[in-house]
Amino acid sequence: MWLGKIVGTVVAPTKNESLVGSKLLIVQPLNLDGMNTISMQVAVDTVGAGNGETVLVVSGSTAQRLTGKPDSAVDAAIVGIVEDIDLQGISKAQYWVQKG
Amino acid sequence: MWLGKIVGTVVAPTKNESLVGSKLLIVQPLNLDGMNTISMQVAVDTVGAGNGETVLVVSGSTAQRLTGKPDSAVDAAIVGIVEDIDLQGISKAQYWVQKG
Amino acid sequence: MWLGKIVGTVVAPTKNESLVGSKLLIVQPLNLDGMNTISMQVAVDTVGAGNGETVLVVSGSTAQRLTGKPDSAVDAAIVGIVEDIDLQGISKAQYWVQKG
Amino acid sequence: MWLGKIVGTVVAPTKNESLVGSKLLIVQPLNLDGMNTISMQVAVDTVGAGNGETVLVVSGSTAQRLTGKPDSAVDAAIVGIVEDIDLQGISKAQYWVQKG
Amino acid sequence: MWLGKIVGTVVAPTKNESLVGSKLLIVQPLNLDGMNTISMQVAVDTVGAGNGETVLVVSGSTAQRLTGKPDSAVDAAIVGIVEDIDLQGISKAQYWVQKG
Repeated sequence: MWLGKIVGTVVAPTKNESLVGSKLLIVQPLNLDGMNTISMQVAVDTVGAGNGETVLVVSGSTAQRLTGKPDSAVDAAIVGIVEDIDLQGISKAQYWVQKG
Repeated sequence: MWLGKIVGTVVAPTKNESLVGSKLLIVQPLNLDGMNTISMQVAVDTVGAGNGETVLVVSGSTAQRLTGKPDSAVDAAIVGIVEDIDLQGISKAQYWVQKG
Repeated sequence: MWLGKIVGTVVAPTKNESLVGSKLLIVQPLNLDGMNTISMQVAVDTVGAGNGETVLVVSGSTAQRLTGKPDSAVDAAIVGIVEDIDLQGISKAQYWVQKG
Repeated sequence: MWLGKIVGTVVAPTKNESLVGSKLLIVQPLNLDGMNTISMQVAVDTVGAGNGETVLVVSGSTAQRLTGKPDSAVDAAIVGIVEDIDLQGISKAQYWVQKG
Repeated sequence: MWLGKIVGTVVAPTKNESLVGSKLLIVQPLNLDGMNTISMQVAVDTVGAGNGETVLVVSGSTAQRLTGKPDSAVDAAIVGIVEDIDLQGISKAQYWVQKG
């Protein structure tokens, strides 16, 4: 499971039918130094997350099984909205959680 | 799930029989800064995607189960054609979506 | 399986119901040179681990099956608390295991 | 799925019994710039591939299920021999496919 | 599957019960240039491997299924002891296999 910030959405009219109605969000992984990376992943929202929020993401078959459909086209899912992070001895990370 | 651009095709007459008739496309992963990387993945097309398009790709057992064959030789599948990306505050990414 | 140090906790009131009651810990992976990296992962605790401890982590479907729930939102789990590491010929790693 | 070049073989008399009789090949992943990387993976051959050939490789549970044995010690398998690659606008990649 | 050298052992009295009695070995992945990397993985031994040996490792659900226990806390397993590597045209790799 990893932490990331939602930075955008994907518009894809032509897609696997299991994705119809799903919110496809672009998530930027976060490091311990709080600096933004240039990598990104696309994850399906399952908790009502919105742009700018810090979220918890699961990957792989875990994400697919979450959907309840054994052949859904999902390998990453947002499963939590992060309100706070308690990091001992790592002062820079406080600005991770910036909502909306 | 990740975003990438289709940059080529693979010709492989000798292959696992589950791949016969499949379109094997070379996909270049995209970063948040919109710069092309030098890495690449091969993915099976499931949505009629073509060269130059930006696509959504799933990996691992999710991709295999999509094929409906429990022993197919697939661990990456194109599951969506991206028409637009809405990235808040990241201006450079607009040139990601460049079709054919 | 990988080794890491627990450096913090995640507070996420809105989350998948399978995570309610779970301790979500931030784990910093360790390298052979003992230097801290800036990457991090979130893992569910299953052995009573606490902040500052060096732990053994499993990922992917292995972690999910550990929970005993076929659709739990878990893809990383702490499965051991490391008391000592015996590294032949790699002197710098001794300071890995620093408790509490 | 990824493309790589076969650069060697592994001799391992002591191994999991599911690997007895399998050809264990060392595969060097290829990038879009055609430059060799220093990373390598070991994959089981399933298509009669030989040294110097460019091949298509699948990883993870996909590779294991290909073997038809639910507990085989395989997480990477060669599933195609690449004869040609058609890359639009990327001229350097032509020398990828160099046989034996 | 990947090649690595065993460089140490993990002592973890508090651990998932499926790991009791297992040998937890620290394995350093090897590159094509034969140089040691600073990354490491922990793998469960299944073939009687010992310190300093070059081994073949499988990861993910493949490793878990090898244990024969559907909920064991294993996502990496040593499945072969490498006696020799035949690398065409890559002279530096000969010193990979250094036992004990």
